[in-house]
Amino acid sequence: MDIQARIQNAMERHFHQVLSASTPPTLKAAMQHAVFPGGARIRPQLCTAVAMVCGEDDTSLTDAGAVALELMHCASLVHDDMPAFDNALLRRGQTTVHAEFSEPIALLTGDALIVMAYQVLLSQRAQVRSSAAHSQRLLEMMDILSQGVGAPSGIVAGQAWECETKVDLWQYQRAKTGALFSASTSLGAVAAGANPAPWHVLGESLGDAYQIADDIRDVIGHMDMIGKPVGQDAEHGRPSAAQALGLEGANSQFKHLIDTAAKSVPDCVGRDLLRGMIFKESERLVPQQAYQAYLQTHQRTQVSMA
Amino acid sequence: MDIQARIQNAMERHFHQVLSASTPPTLKAAMQHAVFPGGARIRPQLCTAVAMVCGEDDTSLTDAGAVALELMHCASLVHDDMPAFDNALLRRGQTTVHAEFSEPIALLTGDALIVMAYQVLLSQRAQVRSSAAHSQRLLEMMDILSQGVGAPSGIVAGQAWECETKVDLWQYQRAKTGALFSASTSLGAVAAGANPAPWHVLGESLGDAYQIADDIRDVIGHMDMIGKPVGQDAEHGRPSAAQALGLEGANSQFKHLIDTAAKSVPDCVGRDLLRGMIFKESERLVPQQAYQAYLQTHQRTQVSMA
Repeated sequence: MDIQARIQNAMERHFHQVLSASTPPTLKAAMQHAVFPGGARIRPQLCTAVAMVCGEDDTSLTDAGAVALELMHCASLVHDDMPAFDNALLRRGQTTVHAEFSEPIALLTGDALIVMAYQVLLSQRAQVRSSAAHSQRLLEMMDILSQGVGAPSGIVAGQAWECETKVDLWQYQRAKTGALFSASTSLGAVAAGANPAPWHVLGESLGDAYQIADDIRDVIGHMDMIGKPVGQDAEHGRPSAAQALGLEGANSQFKHLIDTAAKSVPDCVGRDLLRGMIFKESERLVPQQAYQAYLQTHQRTQVSMA
Repeated sequence: MDIQARIQNAMERHFHQVLSASTPPTLKAAMQHAVFPGGARIRPQLCTAVAMVCGEDDTSLTDAGAVALELMHCASLVHDDMPAFDNALLRRGQTTVHAEFSEPIALLTGDALIVMAYQVLLSQRAQVRSSAAHSQRLLEMMDILSQGVGAPSGIVAGQAWECETKVDLWQYQRAKTGALFSASTSLGAVAAGANPAPWHVLGESLGDAYQIADDIRDVIGHMDMIGKPVGQDAEHGRPSAAQALGLEGANSQFKHLIDTAAKSVPDCVGRDLLRGMIFKESERLVPQQAYQAYLQTHQRTQVSMA
């Protein structure tokens, strides 16, 4: 089974395991809407890939970690799309949860998905009972996940920086996106019983790269390409690397971060495979052809206006 | 130290342990506003009392459970007060989080408090590392807490039932309030290494009693007495026991539930003490003098109108 199929399988299995028939039907439908069909599932991919190259010995622990990460990500998207924040009507090419259901349901959906992430990890409780080491892995995974999401420096804190008048761009972006990427690599390593420390740089630089890519696509992108409205950063006055560094500066920084990520992969059996995945993903994040095309049109426009 | 002081102490200790100086300042202030000075802290009291009468051997585990319960409760209040739900401006006699800060910050505050509840429990990870049994307690506590909060039947599901057109009043109330009360007694038992099963009835009946008391106070109460606006159930068209059973029916049911709760306390050293606490709490929940006064005025009004 390839990684994407494995993740999809685990997502569906865990989703239906937690949500029994007694769940309020609208809440259940909204949670389903928030999680499926889903986007690139990049965080669970990263978690699973790291666990595999670390020689995982407990695939269900990895799967639970991967699913938990994605649920947290989906929760943050649901709340982020609400009128109090982006007031977005489209996400991944379909209506957002509050637009499809209602604001109260969207609020509860996010809350329930956050708790569900822990429920998925805790579903491994019975399996790890016989092994003190695996119990410790499970606790460490929940700790890493919490750090990636909560205060003081997880994605919730990242969002909260948007509400401050004085913001350090890198601290903001590190928290808003980097924190959960960093958690992804660490979670994969811990699920496989490995030391998470050598995997921090990979998670952090990929997270930073992902955030910059998001800023770049927000400028150059077509809605078809990214499945949500473009120009949101400027419209909401959010700090953006593409604004701070200029588009070309941002693209250079993006490439530099991808290189840093690839070089950081510790010596392990699947090192080349993982590096290949990183470069492939980078092309998906900022298609260089689209970037060049935008740049040429933009430069032509500037010249013709001069 | 009495229970209230012990809880206050634990709340402050854990709060400042999780929120380092690098937390976005507005988020931190809003979380502080949501949690302190706090209300009756009834859930942590219940958890702590049960752990004590079960002969607790790890007070820090009990404290972490008690704090986690209260953080979940505070998170639900913050989100529940938001314009998408009650649009309440007052809570515990002070402005609500969204009114004092902003809607985005209130949304994030609730999210961060949910995650913080797990962070507080996970802070015990180092202490339990040396004992497989204590690691299992910690995992079970997180599992119980998640069930009390998330889907399919925790407090989030309870809120979601408000968004359905067909609702079973008892299923709704059991989830909306009962679930976290039930988690409180179970968490206390597990923290002390005891079997949670004999403590279910106490949690459930107190939760039901508490919800009915809330409905009764919503009818008879003065805002001074309960620190938030009255008449909210009728205004928001929410299912209410005081409407379903009539005020006197609701008061009889309340008394019956308090009796059931008191009788359910399993045979243990502090049984009489705990029963005393339950009866004292019941008087705080529905002051019978205020109830009688309301009833007399109301009946007089009906007579004079006849």
